[in-house]
Amino acid sequence: MRQLFKGNEAVVRGAVAAGCKAYFGYPITPASEIAEVASLLLPESGSVFIPAESEIGAIQMLFGAAAAGVRAMTASSGPGISLMQEGISYMAGALLPGVIVDIQRAGPGLGNLGVEQGDYKQVVKGGGHGCYRTPVFAPNSVQEMCDLTIHAFEVADRYRSPVMVLADGALGQMMEPIEIPPPALNEPEKPWAVVGNAATRKNLITSIYLEHDKQEVHITKLEEKYAEIEKNEVLWQEIQTEDAELLIVAFGISSRIARAAVEILRAMGIRVGLLRPISLYPFPAKRLRQLAGKVYSILVLELSSGQLVEDVRLYVGGITPVELLRRTGGMMPAAEDVVQVIKTMEKECVGNHA
Amino acid sequence: MRQLFKGNEAVVRGAVAAGCKAYFGYPITPASEIAEVASLLLPESGSVFIPAESEIGAIQMLFGAAAAGVRAMTASSGPGISLMQEGISYMAGALLPGVIVDIQRAGPGLGNLGVEQGDYKQVVKGGGHGCYRTPVFAPNSVQEMCDLTIHAFEVADRYRSPVMVLADGALGQMMEPIEIPPPALNEPEKPWAVVGNAATRKNLITSIYLEHDKQEVHITKLEEKYAEIEKNEVLWQEIQTEDAELLIVAFGISSRIARAAVEILRAMGIRVGLLRPISLYPFPAKRLRQLAGKVYSILVLELSSGQLVEDVRLYVGGITPVELLRRTGGMMPAAEDVVQVIKTMEKECVGNHA
Amino acid sequence: MRQLFKGNEAVVRGAVAAGCKAYFGYPITPASEIAEVASLLLPESGSVFIPAESEIGAIQMLFGAAAAGVRAMTASSGPGISLMQEGISYMAGALLPGVIVDIQRAGPGLGNLGVEQGDYKQVVKGGGHGCYRTPVFAPNSVQEMCDLTIHAFEVADRYRSPVMVLADGALGQMMEPIEIPPPALNEPEKPWAVVGNAATRKNLITSIYLEHDKQEVHITKLEEKYAEIEKNEVLWQEIQTEDAELLIVAFGISSRIARAAVEILRAMGIRVGLLRPISLYPFPAKRLRQLAGKVYSILVLELSSGQLVEDVRLYVGGITPVELLRRTGGMMPAAEDVVQVIKTMEKECVGNHA
Amino acid sequence: MRQLFKGNEAVVRGAVAAGCKAYFGYPITPASEIAEVASLLLPESGSVFIPAESEIGAIQMLFGAAAAGVRAMTASSGPGISLMQEGISYMAGALLPGVIVDIQRAGPGLGNLGVEQGDYKQVVKGGGHGCYRTPVFAPNSVQEMCDLTIHAFEVADRYRSPVMVLADGALGQMMEPIEIPPPALNEPEKPWAVVGNAATRKNLITSIYLEHDKQEVHITKLEEKYAEIEKNEVLWQEIQTEDAELLIVAFGISSRIARAAVEILRAMGIRVGLLRPISLYPFPAKRLRQLAGKVYSILVLELSSGQLVEDVRLYVGGITPVELLRRTGGMMPAAEDVVQVIKTMEKECVGNHA
Repeated sequence: MRQLFKGNEAVVRGAVAAGCKAYFGYPITPASEIAEVASLLLPESGSVFIPAESEIGAIQMLFGAAAAGVRAMTASSGPGISLMQEGISYMAGALLPGVIVDIQRAGPGLGNLGVEQGDYKQVVKGGGHGCYRTPVFAPNSVQEMCDLTIHAFEVADRYRSPVMVLADGALGQMMEPIEIPPPALNEPEKPWAVVGNAATRKNLITSIYLEHDKQEVHITKLEEKYAEIEKNEVLWQEIQTEDAELLIVAFGISSRIARAAVEILRAMGIRVGLLRPISLYPFPAKRLRQLAGKVYSILVLELSSGQLVEDVRLYVGGITPVELLRRTGGMMPAAEDVVQVIKTMEKECVGNHA
Repeated sequence: MRQLFKGNEAVVRGAVAAGCKAYFGYPITPASEIAEVASLLLPESGSVFIPAESEIGAIQMLFGAAAAGVRAMTASSGPGISLMQEGISYMAGALLPGVIVDIQRAGPGLGNLGVEQGDYKQVVKGGGHGCYRTPVFAPNSVQEMCDLTIHAFEVADRYRSPVMVLADGALGQMMEPIEIPPPALNEPEKPWAVVGNAATRKNLITSIYLEHDKQEVHITKLEEKYAEIEKNEVLWQEIQTEDAELLIVAFGISSRIARAAVEILRAMGIRVGLLRPISLYPFPAKRLRQLAGKVYSILVLELSSGQLVEDVRLYVGGITPVELLRRTGGMMPAAEDVVQVIKTMEKECVGNHA
Repeated sequence: MRQLFKGNEAVVRGAVAAGCKAYFGYPITPASEIAEVASLLLPESGSVFIPAESEIGAIQMLFGAAAAGVRAMTASSGPGISLMQEGISYMAGALLPGVIVDIQRAGPGLGNLGVEQGDYKQVVKGGGHGCYRTPVFAPNSVQEMCDLTIHAFEVADRYRSPVMVLADGALGQMMEPIEIPPPALNEPEKPWAVVGNAATRKNLITSIYLEHDKQEVHITKLEEKYAEIEKNEVLWQEIQTEDAELLIVAFGISSRIARAAVEILRAMGIRVGLLRPISLYPFPAKRLRQLAGKVYSILVLELSSGQLVEDVRLYVGGITPVELLRRTGGMMPAAEDVVQVIKTMEKECVGNHA
Repeated sequence: MRQLFKGNEAVVRGAVAAGCKAYFGYPITPASEIAEVASLLLPESGSVFIPAESEIGAIQMLFGAAAAGVRAMTASSGPGISLMQEGISYMAGALLPGVIVDIQRAGPGLGNLGVEQGDYKQVVKGGGHGCYRTPVFAPNSVQEMCDLTIHAFEVADRYRSPVMVLADGALGQMMEPIEIPPPALNEPEKPWAVVGNAATRKNLITSIYLEHDKQEVHITKLEEKYAEIEKNEVLWQEIQTEDAELLIVAFGISSRIARAAVEILRAMGIRVGLLRPISLYPFPAKRLRQLAGKVYSILVLELSSGQLVEDVRLYVGGITPVELLRRTGGMMPAAEDVVQVIKTMEKECVGNHA
């Protein structure tokens, strides 16, 4: 049975279906509704909702809950995610699972409440200190806000890693009918957790290895884990790429605009396709490279100053030209804007290949 | 007259020479000596030293001092830099100059006090929320710890941007004789600052633009500023690259190991060169691309799990193979390790080109 | 059915019996077991346990829960109670009920974990800013740790006031068999609370009255409330006071020593009695004055530098000499010490009256 | 040469004259001007002004500066003073001098910015945890705001104790011409301080004595110190008490109203006098008792719900009736109100003694 939900509520519905036992958070627009709904739904199922005194408190509580083997999450928007970077690094170092949802707003600084994707680098490439990565999933529908939250919990537990869901204010606010999956009990045993009994007293949750060689061994294990993740956890969607001569790359809310543009362009007879990375880390780099080998040109559509495009250029490795169409500050491109750019690119390609 | 100083002290000597009027910080090994020396030297010259209650306090104080037009700085190590990411984003958004020094330690999480370069992505590629960049300078000697700190203050004021100095515990602790430049008074007028008088009361220091179009205009100006920085502020050093068939890329402390390896390899008759980026943002991408066109192969030497190598691959754009030699956790490669890898690569190249 | 409990656990058993729905706290010896037991027992009955980030966080959470009409509590020891003084004043000003338990340790400053009553003035006479009082109940047994906690919740709701339970580390740690009363549902309606629905949206919980005359009216209502409390809520215990010529005054743990001394002295034929204030505010001033009129002399026994004795002198009003026997720093007087002092006082009295 | 100053500025002028080397504070009306003026005047004389992140930060900085042997101060109003209670207790326990100024506002809770004396109990009787006292001086003119601040620094150093100045918003805001004393250099040597050199490394500043007997010895020394203070540091003022049959007791701003009332009443031929405690701790208890023996009746005038009156009753010890005239919430009694009450009391006395 399908029900109509806002994206922010769908995140919490997904968390409940995933068996999330604790939510910690501090309010910030446009993510606050996640906390609001969590405060209502989690206690109903015997789970815990704690309003933290700050984002730093929230991420430390997530560390603590995760160390106790509890499925737990937090959510925020850009400025709050920045404040959590230290804690996320500690969770990665201490091999702790947990889900962190970023409902992006426009930045830098206070910025505004508009739709942007300016946290891409922070969440996907950089963030906290030291050598670690966090899997990142980017929904583009209310259904995926739910489904990828569930998936995030599973990936977090599978790899003992913090996992991020990267969305934005538009996805958080939009309403779509969705199917909530039935609660599943696929949470693995966590013999490593410290649950306050004698049996687990010997377990040690730490990110400190004072001896350099032991820290290097620890990091090497992290590297091996990330290699596994890059092998197994890549997710993406393709639209009309089979015969495409031009390729658009976009994720999240902007991929919906790109898809509309693809439909318009196809109706004009222009052979354009869309690659939508669903996992931003691990990035669908291999598939992108394959597609890049088949098309004349690639257009990256993003709501930031050229962040995703850098990764696309990195993975394309120079074999195909990569163009950028971007808006920022909460401004949204129309499908027609994308159509215009693609049409220009098509002429250039035709010219080049004539 | 040359004097013997530790790298951490050289940072403060540079700051004093640059006319730094305020230091705010919270102690963390291996950066604490910067605060210690600042607490002694700054008051001597009528400047202010304030021990903050946390790294978040420190970066907010830096915001405040910068808004008042005061040359000011802070320093920390990885975990503290993570905590500052929100504030750095606010400074970038509010067009505020300021110098932030990162004396890296091993991570993620608590890690240890060993030498690492694991903050590369955090400092150079990601960090806080929203679309902004910070110029980053990476010294590889005690003299440069001083000189690049001075330079950081100048670049910060020139572009009204936070600027980072990225070093590590080895550079912080090592002692070398250096020349302290005489105090220069090249601090520009700051008519935009709010200095507590009637004349500047109308000045507005803010990172908030509630209307989307105004935020986009603001971000476009940031983009133009970053384009200027990429054009004017690239710094790098080359060692024996004129006839090189193989190229090593390394920055900071590992570039010293690379240089020693180059000398050993040249003595063996192997034509290897070194490109050392001094500015990590802006990266010497154009020069790297030129050199990549002339060599068979590139080796990236870094003290992290493959962070710098991603940028090198991005800028090389696939025209030359890029290999990685990395140690982590505080472990240091010997020059001999580099020599071995280069010798292997050379054979492969010869084989390929035979 | 009687069960063996520690005093700290008895506090929580009492809170559960009183229908306490939320516990907020930050750990400090010797009060930490209250939080520990609360974290186990409260969730069992669907109540909430939240470990706060500081005592300031805890008291603010108590403010919030109380404003929502929820029976809630916190506990700490001296240093933590000091940190809560601002929040307690706000609760008193905003007419909010709540229970705060102080398991005293030795002070001032860090002091040690020993048994002391050095928080008497802070809790009973002074504390936070402005004109307000808090009812204070002082148990001297594990049974009373339970019963007076229940009583504190009832008094708090009856008068819309924060109420304190003042105990110490000995009472917190000692084990005695007690009877847990059955859960009672005597919590009054709270039509003044803000419970997150439309009906209570108009309710205002505040301690601010910007107009001076309105603040005076508000304080006058507080004064009237305190007059009611002084009339209705005085609790005390008397031991062999009917024919007493000498009176000991002591509360809490030291009243047990005093009682043992009374038994020894009575066996010697010395007519001594004990007045134990159970409510420290309101103090059993009238009864003390009556008894003072009948005895030659009064001995105050306290584990602090003369705090209770000041109140006894205030209420005795000069009609009978008041002596002090005190130990501090965690040192405990023996019953024999009390016996010696009383015997000396008796001789003086006999001498005086001969 | 006399200059016109506000009371809040006079506090800082006094601090500078006393050689105060550091001010730490967080703003709160009506005390904020102290910080404002300190931020201007202290740096002029090479002293330090640090805006703390909270009142808790401010008092901890005061602890640190005092431990380093530096004359330092903070100021706040009621809510902020509440937050400092833990730190004040630590300073008392660690034998650290320091000056804390309370410019009272109306309470409890947020209250308002009006004139009140509702912090009397907090500052004079209770406050933080454990057995300690703080000398408290209560100015009633702008000149005394300056002079008693200087005196507070001297008493603080003489007894190694935190010392409080208790004023209110009216004294803080009123302007009167005052004489600033010349800077005096009567700061004692502080061989116990830890000043960051080898010689003082062995000095220990602590409030922790884990062994109970040592803590008791420590507290006994505190008691002896307080006995010294009670012997040597009592300050008060008398107006027309020689032949008085009625006595008014008032301190601070309300003593000015009382004095005006005395003048009116004397003009009517009523023999009334005024005792103004200047030191609230130590209280002029002995002199009050002497005067109480000579008058028919005592009137306490205070701007709080009966706080001072309790101490007056304590010290009078029942030998003379003590009446109370009080206003609260920022409301001020007129001299005429006092006159009316005294006239009523006079009739009753005449009646009683007829």
